Amino acid sequence: MLKTSERAHQMQASPIRKLIPFATAARKKGITVYPLNIGQPDIHTPEPIREAIRAFDQKVLAYSPSPGEDFLLEAFSGYYKSNNIPLEPSEIIVTTGGSEAIFFAFLAICDAGEEVLVFEPFYTNYNGVAFEIDVTLKALTTYAEDGFQIPPIEAVEAAITPKTRGILICNPNNPTGTVYSKKVLEGLARLAKKRNLYIISDEVYREFTYDGLTHTSILQIPGMDEHAILIDSISKRYSACGARIGVIASKNRDVMAGCVKFAQARLSSPTVEQWAARAGMLMDPSYFRPILEEYQRRRDTVMEGFKSIPGVVCKTPSGAFYVIAKLPINDAEEFAKWMLTDFQTGGETVLVAPAGGFYATEGLGKNEIRISYVLEVEKLKKAMKALAAGVKAFQEFEKRTKASPAKAAQASK
Amino acid sequence: MLKTSERAHQMQASPIRKLIPFATAARKKGITVYPLNIGQPDIHTPEPIREAIRAFDQKVLAYSPSPGEDFLLEAFSGYYKSNNIPLEPSEIIVTTGGSEAIFFAFLAICDAGEEVLVFEPFYTNYNGVAFEIDVTLKALTTYAEDGFQIPPIEAVEAAITPKTRGILICNPNNPTGTVYSKKVLEGLARLAKKRNLYIISDEVYREFTYDGLTHTSILQIPGMDEHAILIDSISKRYSACGARIGVIASKNRDVMAGCVKFAQARLSSPTVEQWAARAGMLMDPSYFRPILEEYQRRRDTVMEGFKSIPGVVCKTPSGAFYVIAKLPINDAEEFAKWMLTDFQTGGETVLVAPAGGFYATEGLGKNEIRISYVLEVEKLKKAMKALAAGVKAFQEFEKRTKASPAKAAQASK
Repeated sequence: MLKTSERAHQMQASPIRKLIPFATAARKKGITVYPLNIGQPDIHTPEPIREAIRAFDQKVLAYSPSPGEDFLLEAFSGYYKSNNIPLEPSEIIVTTGGSEAIFFAFLAICDAGEEVLVFEPFYTNYNGVAFEIDVTLKALTTYAEDGFQIPPIEAVEAAITPKTRGILICNPNNPTGTVYSKKVLEGLARLAKKRNLYIISDEVYREFTYDGLTHTSILQIPGMDEHAILIDSISKRYSACGARIGVIASKNRDVMAGCVKFAQARLSSPTVEQWAARAGMLMDPSYFRPILEEYQRRRDTVMEGFKSIPGVVCKTPSGAFYVIAKLPINDAEEFAKWMLTDFQTGGETVLVAPAGGFYATEGLGKNEIRISYVLEVEKLKKAMKALAAGVKAFQEFEKRTKASPAKAAQASK
Repeated sequence: MLKTSERAHQMQASPIRKLIPFATAARKKGITVYPLNIGQPDIHTPEPIREAIRAFDQKVLAYSPSPGEDFLLEAFSGYYKSNNIPLEPSEIIVTTGGSEAIFFAFLAICDAGEEVLVFEPFYTNYNGVAFEIDVTLKALTTYAEDGFQIPPIEAVEAAITPKTRGILICNPNNPTGTVYSKKVLEGLARLAKKRNLYIISDEVYREFTYDGLTHTSILQIPGMDEHAILIDSISKRYSACGARIGVIASKNRDVMAGCVKFAQARLSSPTVEQWAARAGMLMDPSYFRPILEEYQRRRDTVMEGFKSIPGVVCKTPSGAFYVIAKLPINDAEEFAKWMLTDFQTGGETVLVAPAGGFYATEGLGKNEIRISYVLEVEKLKKAMKALAAGVKAFQEFEKRTKASPAKAAQASK
């Protein structure tokens, strides 16, 4: 019998995407499903980016250089410098989305069987990428009750083993929306130096900080030049997820030399989008101000919605466009599916991501969901109303099925 | 001391791309360098593809579905069916270039430490991708003298170990230009069934067969449904390498289920190019006839050039747009570099790929080069003239430096 690899068998399915078929089925029944599961913003991609695509006039759609087009590396360098992150073009490689940057970073610092510390809940694709190349993500748990802050530095140090090669942070954080302070980053930096570790810092949500908070990059912490690896992407900043343009950047030359070779093995990132990304990088940063205000309104809308649901645990997040909320229910996985298969209120329901998939530790996040607030305020209001009604109805459903487990088993089919 | 992984350290640099800095330096000195090193065609990308890029008018450049846009899967399916390769949309996944399709194929069939048989010389990036995920490519040697045909099936069978999970072929072949006959494929198919192996068939050069030869796909061999994994790409067919649109396809559902999960971990392939690729797939196949004729003329030009160099071993290849030639010199690696640093004739020289990098077995291919005939005939004629003059001059150089090894060592700095 011809079998696939264990890798193919054990590889995780995306917890963000796996409920989509149920949403499709609900829509076919005429139900309006508000998609709060995925980080796909509805904000229009800026006109200069779309114009750059329309203006592409090369006769041959040729390979780009493996590390990226010079003009784009220059544009990224300029963008970083204007954000007080001193990166030269030679310290940057264009990647096919932030996902590939993560892949290169893991490959560059870890051999098979080695480990990277992460803080759970974490962006679930970190795990998928790590699994493909036999890197273990060792997760330290953070909690809804204290806004998913990183545990005390002693606890982080205690988790280091001889196999630990780095610490991966996402700042601002997907899926929690937490923004790490300069002080927290300094603590991690000291630990990285003391214990000879890399820090991989995923900063794709750099611009998304609310309430006037400023973002600190790992590369702004003194002494991190050899230790820091920056992950970035234009996907969220410019609402251009489909462009598949990201970046890996580091002042560590050995890391970059390795990444150039990994880049050569996949030839190049898409060419047209490198022109498009350049057009984005050259935009005046003021472009982002109204977008930031819009996202802050959305965040506030979501938080108001949660406050209307008794028993929800959810501190107001300061960044990105995600929030994880602990719901007064038992099984968020079942809840998320049930919202699509068995629930509607006034013909409407929501698609949320059960948070269990964002935890590495089995059993955690079982009553939590992640929401992406990537819809406009009026839609978000309706979505949160449907969510609140859904939670209430599901509590009753859980109560009923608890009394009759057989019925519960049948309902969860 | 902070070190990178052994993977980063040991990863191969592209033998196709590593001489580019020397070519750049030669050009700065005013020398015309004909690039015969890389498979980047000069043929214009067809107007419908470029038009589809210019016509992209979505307000949000959003993620595509991880397995690819439905409209593109439909278009690929239609293309395959019209080529008598019966593939349904559900049996196809869009990948970010053929490179990613190879990555998914290896992941799907091999766990760490397992093996795939290949025939050397082979496309060097197979090795890079395999190395990243700890898959071993076990190479059986093929020879210039018999046109790089696959060895007798008994020899292939003898190379199978308990760790062998599949056989990887490239047909038509990069880097040799060899096209495998139906009989050869049937032999491999019988072996795959007998020994329970996958056959990964890279058919990105499907259309590039000369002298009226027709191409046979692995999926046209009866009984291969569970065993065959097809790798494909629009890069060469439509001269659209920079689009980064490829395909992995199989009738084996378990393989495809694994690949969907691998695809989810990198979110999606570029969106704009999926529209562009669709426009290509929908073109009438007659579009390709003049291009094929052009490539055949180029191949003939290259072969005439080689015939003018005494001592070259090179059978006329039947497909793709590559040829490997054994030159009457000792060190092709040194030769390729020397052509850029120390040689010119009438202000012209060539950039070729030394073939050593296409062999897994140490020491093989040392006096061979690979040429991509992706330039127009007039340029190719000049390039082959420069190559012929270069070989003659290098023979004398090798004679001189053989008499004085110290000088040779110095010259190779």
